Amino acid sequence: MNTISPRPVDAVIAAASAFLGDRMTTNGAIREQHSHGEDSSTPTLPDAVAFVETTEEVSRLLALCHQHGVPVVPFGAGTSLEGHVNPVRAGISLDLSRMTAVLEVNDQDMDCLIEPGVTRQQLNEFLRDKGLFFPVDPGSHCTIGGMVATRASGTNAVRYGTMRENVLGLEVVLADGRVIQTGGRTRKAANGYDLTRLFIGSEGTLGVVTKVRLRLHGIPEAMSSAVVQFPTLAGAVESTIQVMQMGIPVARIELLDDDMMAAAIAFSKLEGFLPSTTLFLEFHGTEAGVKEQAELVEAITTEHGGSDFRWATDPAERAKLWKARHDSYWAGVAWIPGRRALTTDVCVPISRLTEALVGAKEEAKALGHTTCIVGHVGDGNFHQMVLYDPNDPKGLEGAWDMDRRIVARGMALGGTCSGEHGIGLGKREFLEAEHGIEALAVMRSLKATLDPKGIMNPGKMFRN
Amino acid sequence: MNTISPRPVDAVIAAASAFLGDRMTTNGAIREQHSHGEDSSTPTLPDAVAFVETTEEVSRLLALCHQHGVPVVPFGAGTSLEGHVNPVRAGISLDLSRMTAVLEVNDQDMDCLIEPGVTRQQLNEFLRDKGLFFPVDPGSHCTIGGMVATRASGTNAVRYGTMRENVLGLEVVLADGRVIQTGGRTRKAANGYDLTRLFIGSEGTLGVVTKVRLRLHGIPEAMSSAVVQFPTLAGAVESTIQVMQMGIPVARIELLDDDMMAAAIAFSKLEGFLPSTTLFLEFHGTEAGVKEQAELVEAITTEHGGSDFRWATDPAERAKLWKARHDSYWAGVAWIPGRRALTTDVCVPISRLTEALVGAKEEAKALGHTTCIVGHVGDGNFHQMVLYDPNDPKGLEGAWDMDRRIVARGMALGGTCSGEHGIGLGKREFLEAEHGIEALAVMRSLKATLDPKGIMNPGKMFRN
Repeated sequence: MNTISPRPVDAVIAAASAFLGDRMTTNGAIREQHSHGEDSSTPTLPDAVAFVETTEEVSRLLALCHQHGVPVVPFGAGTSLEGHVNPVRAGISLDLSRMTAVLEVNDQDMDCLIEPGVTRQQLNEFLRDKGLFFPVDPGSHCTIGGMVATRASGTNAVRYGTMRENVLGLEVVLADGRVIQTGGRTRKAANGYDLTRLFIGSEGTLGVVTKVRLRLHGIPEAMSSAVVQFPTLAGAVESTIQVMQMGIPVARIELLDDDMMAAAIAFSKLEGFLPSTTLFLEFHGTEAGVKEQAELVEAITTEHGGSDFRWATDPAERAKLWKARHDSYWAGVAWIPGRRALTTDVCVPISRLTEALVGAKEEAKALGHTTCIVGHVGDGNFHQMVLYDPNDPKGLEGAWDMDRRIVARGMALGGTCSGEHGIGLGKREFLEAEHGIEALAVMRSLKATLDPKGIMNPGKMFRN
Repeated sequence: MNTISPRPVDAVIAAASAFLGDRMTTNGAIREQHSHGEDSSTPTLPDAVAFVETTEEVSRLLALCHQHGVPVVPFGAGTSLEGHVNPVRAGISLDLSRMTAVLEVNDQDMDCLIEPGVTRQQLNEFLRDKGLFFPVDPGSHCTIGGMVATRASGTNAVRYGTMRENVLGLEVVLADGRVIQTGGRTRKAANGYDLTRLFIGSEGTLGVVTKVRLRLHGIPEAMSSAVVQFPTLAGAVESTIQVMQMGIPVARIELLDDDMMAAAIAFSKLEGFLPSTTLFLEFHGTEAGVKEQAELVEAITTEHGGSDFRWATDPAERAKLWKARHDSYWAGVAWIPGRRALTTDVCVPISRLTEALVGAKEEAKALGHTTCIVGHVGDGNFHQMVLYDPNDPKGLEGAWDMDRRIVARGMALGGTCSGEHGIGLGKREFLEAEHGIEALAVMRSLKATLDPKGIMNPGKMFRN
């Protein structure tokens, strides 16, 4: 009988099984489920999946992986659109979705301490009775840990900021198993290097987040939504630019272009809407403040051709509209049966949004691509979904070509390839162009310092 | 004739003189001026002072210092309160105060690109005609570069955030002379490690900031100030806590305790005020919004014993009041002739502010210390100035003892030793207690990665 030398990962699986029991698994279906996110990259099976429940378990597992040089890919809800959770070099998929405790809510200080597997919906349900909410809202059923990892934002960021502004501190397990605490409970601090923000947006390449302290916000006294439709894409974008330049503190200002609106009408059974470019707005504040904001916005949109400015103050009606907005990704995917979607995430300075967004839409049309756009336009961020035919051998390749054109246009206008989805696999090629070779070298040196064996989510963010 | 082997710094001075000319100087008066900030540490002379004017000069000088292992201490306006600009290991004081160009103002995107020697007053004078302003306001005539280095904040941070939230990107010269660009022009990005925030608050220990891209804000349609006096310190603090917990978006809410108010009345010749605890407030917004905010705050302060709620809508009157507030540091120093001030900078979660602030004041009184307090209380941050007699051999030592007590109390309440002044020399001993040994080791490893020879502002932030 031949003996095959054991793989390093087998040593990790054996040793970790001693403390994880059957929560360390090589079950095929579970490995398949952990082989991909919601992206277009080719799935890769991890060697095993570990369902961790405590910081100590994460620490012990990472120490083992560090010792044996085995890759570790943190996994939350698997909603990444950029391949972050695809274990391209196999190894261990570290599933944190069972770490769902809300450990503290300090309602007087408006902060909380949670485990990373809590989803934003779960957190907001938990907080509702306390008059508090957590505003960062990427739309999907993602975990807070994943949102930290990708520096997520979403619809409310225009008013409340992104994860960068709404995380007060972290507990992080480093690649070698050491556990550190970053940040603190105060609104501000000038007390050493900002380790919290070093880990926010590090996409699982520097360590594993095991606790998150979040800044919360009081549920506003008054909230109202409005919807307004435009005959042209430019009219909606120009309205947005003017709203932002006037400093009107809108809580949400979201754009769906005509194609996305057609998809949303079909998918979400929206009644009374035309398939034309639409802005979805939300206002937070006092009763008087909300009214004042809405009146200003109505005047601006009317000036740019917007018509039929409609209020939705009824919570049920508001919820339905926002659900349609949040489901627009799925609406886009479902719009043309058989198509798949490649999603872009360009973000530009607000003054350049018309050139970026209208230009990219026209270019796509001219090249024969079907695209639909949903945008967090107040932040200058938009997602242009390129709908390609997966059965056409050139379908995905063509979509990537369009993606590169959209990114190139955005970067030429002073923008970035990623407003909120992160780099992952799909955007690695843009990183050097965006930051320059020296800054990228600094990023790599930080990675090498904190993860000298390169076990943390290898192959993501950097090409190498 | 004996020969003395040349010191490494002499090699740097000689080589840098070739491109800096007489802007590389060993003049005694200039070295003395660069031997200290506005802190209580013992001044140390640098070996030379370099007045740089371009990024390239900084890069060439740092490459030389790196080559020869010579310390470099960045110097802006010299307003540091924590010894940051004191060249404790001699070497080169790198004076950036001549780099004062405003390179870009993008009024449509509300951002600008400036050199680090620009002061916030210069910037705001430059911006005034454009209807824009930069809100971060530590009060002193500091440079923007120094504000980046210390993660500064000040009076407006309660509404507009600190340097952490208001810097979009940086140009940084690394210890070895490499030049990197960080961040970008967009409101948000998920595009790699957050190098911008790694350098914000790094206190000159990781590199030298040579350009700063700032987020600007529109000058509000309406601004008004108010002043209200309280019979007790607790009443003013409790009012503040309630204002913050109600989410009233005050632009400034500043506290001067009875002793500081006595000092301010004397120093700034304020008329019509009692030497009792006072809140200075400012409201920004629309006409209606400002009125609404002020009415809510007046109701809250009245409930807590505040009386004589006074408006100041006249710009001249407003300016006079805020000048008195900004001069309170100097008022405190001048209050008792012959005394010097050791300033603390504790910041706590807002709910613990009464225990932290009232407790520290009472403890100081009980121990026979004369202290006066000015606080950015909306952020939970206060500066308790301990006025000591420099001619008493135990004066400074006693002040340090009181400082440690104030910090220990604040940290026990979930706070930090530094809300905005930074660590520098004076707060190094607290850093490990605050972050834990592992997080401090991570900070040290980042320092070693970016500054392997330890030339960047050595002796600051870390002990040894």
